[in-house]
Amino acid sequence: MQIEIICTGDEVLTGKIVNSNFSYISTKLEDAGLTVRWGTTVGDDRDSLLAAFKQAGERADAVIVNGGLGPTVDDLSQEIAARAAGVELTLHETWLKRMEEFFQRRSRIMPPNNRKQAMLPSTAEMLDNPIGTACGFALDIGKARFFFTPGVPRELHRMLAEQIIPRLLARTGAATAIHLKRFHSYGLGESHVDSLLEGVEALVPDGSVKLGFRAHYPQLETKLTVRGADMDDVRVKLAPVQQEVRKRLGNFIMAEDDQTLEGVILAALTERAGTLALIETFTSGMIASRLAHWPGAEKIFVRGAVARSRPQVWASAGIAGTPPEGELTPEMAGTVAAAARRQSGTTHGLAVLIAVDQGADRIDLGGSINIGIATATEVVTRRARIVGGRDWVRLGAVELGLDCLRRYLLGLPVSERIDFEKV
Amino acid sequence: MQIEIICTGDEVLTGKIVNSNFSYISTKLEDAGLTVRWGTTVGDDRDSLLAAFKQAGERADAVIVNGGLGPTVDDLSQEIAARAAGVELTLHETWLKRMEEFFQRRSRIMPPNNRKQAMLPSTAEMLDNPIGTACGFALDIGKARFFFTPGVPRELHRMLAEQIIPRLLARTGAATAIHLKRFHSYGLGESHVDSLLEGVEALVPDGSVKLGFRAHYPQLETKLTVRGADMDDVRVKLAPVQQEVRKRLGNFIMAEDDQTLEGVILAALTERAGTLALIETFTSGMIASRLAHWPGAEKIFVRGAVARSRPQVWASAGIAGTPPEGELTPEMAGTVAAAARRQSGTTHGLAVLIAVDQGADRIDLGGSINIGIATATEVVTRRARIVGGRDWVRLGAVELGLDCLRRYLLGLPVSERIDFEKV
Repeated sequence: MQIEIICTGDEVLTGKIVNSNFSYISTKLEDAGLTVRWGTTVGDDRDSLLAAFKQAGERADAVIVNGGLGPTVDDLSQEIAARAAGVELTLHETWLKRMEEFFQRRSRIMPPNNRKQAMLPSTAEMLDNPIGTACGFALDIGKARFFFTPGVPRELHRMLAEQIIPRLLARTGAATAIHLKRFHSYGLGESHVDSLLEGVEALVPDGSVKLGFRAHYPQLETKLTVRGADMDDVRVKLAPVQQEVRKRLGNFIMAEDDQTLEGVILAALTERAGTLALIETFTSGMIASRLAHWPGAEKIFVRGAVARSRPQVWASAGIAGTPPEGELTPEMAGTVAAAARRQSGTTHGLAVLIAVDQGADRIDLGGSINIGIATATEVVTRRARIVGGRDWVRLGAVELGLDCLRRYLLGLPVSERIDFEKV
Repeated sequence: MQIEIICTGDEVLTGKIVNSNFSYISTKLEDAGLTVRWGTTVGDDRDSLLAAFKQAGERADAVIVNGGLGPTVDDLSQEIAARAAGVELTLHETWLKRMEEFFQRRSRIMPPNNRKQAMLPSTAEMLDNPIGTACGFALDIGKARFFFTPGVPRELHRMLAEQIIPRLLARTGAATAIHLKRFHSYGLGESHVDSLLEGVEALVPDGSVKLGFRAHYPQLETKLTVRGADMDDVRVKLAPVQQEVRKRLGNFIMAEDDQTLEGVILAALTERAGTLALIETFTSGMIASRLAHWPGAEKIFVRGAVARSRPQVWASAGIAGTPPEGELTPEMAGTVAAAARRQSGTTHGLAVLIAVDQGADRIDLGGSINIGIATATEVVTRRARIVGGRDWVRLGAVELGLDCLRRYLLGLPVSERIDFEKV
């Protein structure tokens, strides 16, 4: 099936906003085993919209149009859809009623110009939008089925999942159930994971399991798309593959599906009524900002400190006297973690201390990262050197610090060599 | 002039990476007074590329193509450009030599497949890429001039600024000099600033000054694009307009052009040999992470603390005894800022303490933000309530806290009502 995406709106065309809706739609279709072949971006302009709809209607089997369903004069999608399909716009009574209820629930009167949002091409099939006033719809233009979606991301996301992808899958006539399994890892590059996982797709010989990746440094997402006759079939197919992925990637898998690294850490601490004290340097508050704001974190994240000079790091941890001189060591990080823990009366202390290379920022600028984790009974440490410029080092150190804490809390080895580290 | 952009590559088409190159190109052209009319995204696929080039060649006057200039087999831009233009690929000796030197300078041997990057359509004009091996080029396809650019963002940025925009401006036959003046503000919404600045374009009656905006909450960028015969002409035209913008937006302008809010704060502190101690709560390290990592900040940013509970906030600031009970107040923030300053021996102390509404995250969840700024001789405070969900409150509080510090350091009123605040 040939699928195209058309994104509309002056704000997207002129670059005022980055078009993340395009990559969202494309990714979600890929995850469902559907491939996008062409993308078009046009502004709020009648001629361009009409030309874009007609061209896509000649080339594609299905087209997803994003944006232009709002109440203002520059929202043109319904009007041009009707023109391209050669039909009239008519008032959709059901949607008008839905909008009036929408405003009533918020104790507001519906402004007159919202009525425009209930004007749909006469041949349109309504696509429900349970959380907004922009009505989605589908209709045929040329040889393609067009699906019109709102520009507001959360409305688009829901309509795509609940209304559009099921319709597209039904049109492919393929397997009726599809499932996306995701693994989040840190420390292994994409090509390394790709080679580690060689052959896992073949564990299900009928080709219904597809492996994919999405890298967003420092994390890597490994994806398994599984198709089956129904969800039971999907589960049976997925089971041996996901077991094999877990075995091969081992301790590097930090989280699965909607879990996050920070969520796993907070859950592990909550489970044991644990609490955390944190000291960081060049990461400059980025480790704290991953953990401290979540609902419930106020009971777990007791205190964090950011300091750049060694005397201030020592003072922040409540260590009296002058800190040792010489090269920064993992033992120093252990000492600081232990002191921070004692000072705040927490069960766990984490210190991530970094010696950044001198000089101007450059691609071969590196940092030596010294990590200490302390409890009442022990101190463990880890040292790694990451090279790639100030931002690269800082982002890597945030992830490494958090991942070491995860490993410690889950009883895994804290020191395991990663691809990003230089020896 | 009708301008189009064609973005190529499977990674962009499938959504593996968000296409920020498109918005970058489009924004830069807008800033130069050029308007993009159409955007196309296609994968690394010969038929799609050829169709995209031919269609754009029929519609447009100028086309910018991004990506596909690399050394691997899926990089097809030169090959398809030659086919679309009906010419041969030939070896570009100059570029081959440049690449060999590029590798020599890095003490590496050029891999044989890089030779492919010097194969250009015979009619191509070379566009220099001084920082990479992908050679840019321009040629005619249909009625349009095509400009081929590398996918690597920093290479694209430079080629666009140095090679392509000047050529496009020359083709428009318009003014030969163009300048973009930018103002960064916090606290006023886009429509508010738009109405405050009504009529400023008309201060230069010939229409050569154009006003525009780019909102990225919590900051707003106000842009003036000025065209003139030469840079002296541009300066003469810009002077009265920029003076008027500064007058009307007043204290809300935090920074201009490439300046940043954090840069202005660090510079103001550096100038007076100042140092900073910081205490934050729900912003969870995000204020520290805006300041502490910059080169030179290690002398200014002395210590930051993150805590979520009132006793820990007080303890972090080195205040003995039990903190006061009852509603969080600006006076409490002042007390904490003063104590943090004394504890760390800094010239300035900043405390941003937030009472977040209870309950699940929702669009009408708010937070009461209490800010204290302390020096050896005085304490000033500010209170604001921001509503819009947890992330909205957190981001707003980071900016408000930093902006209050900027205002204090520059001798401006710290309390000035902002649009995002509820009374």
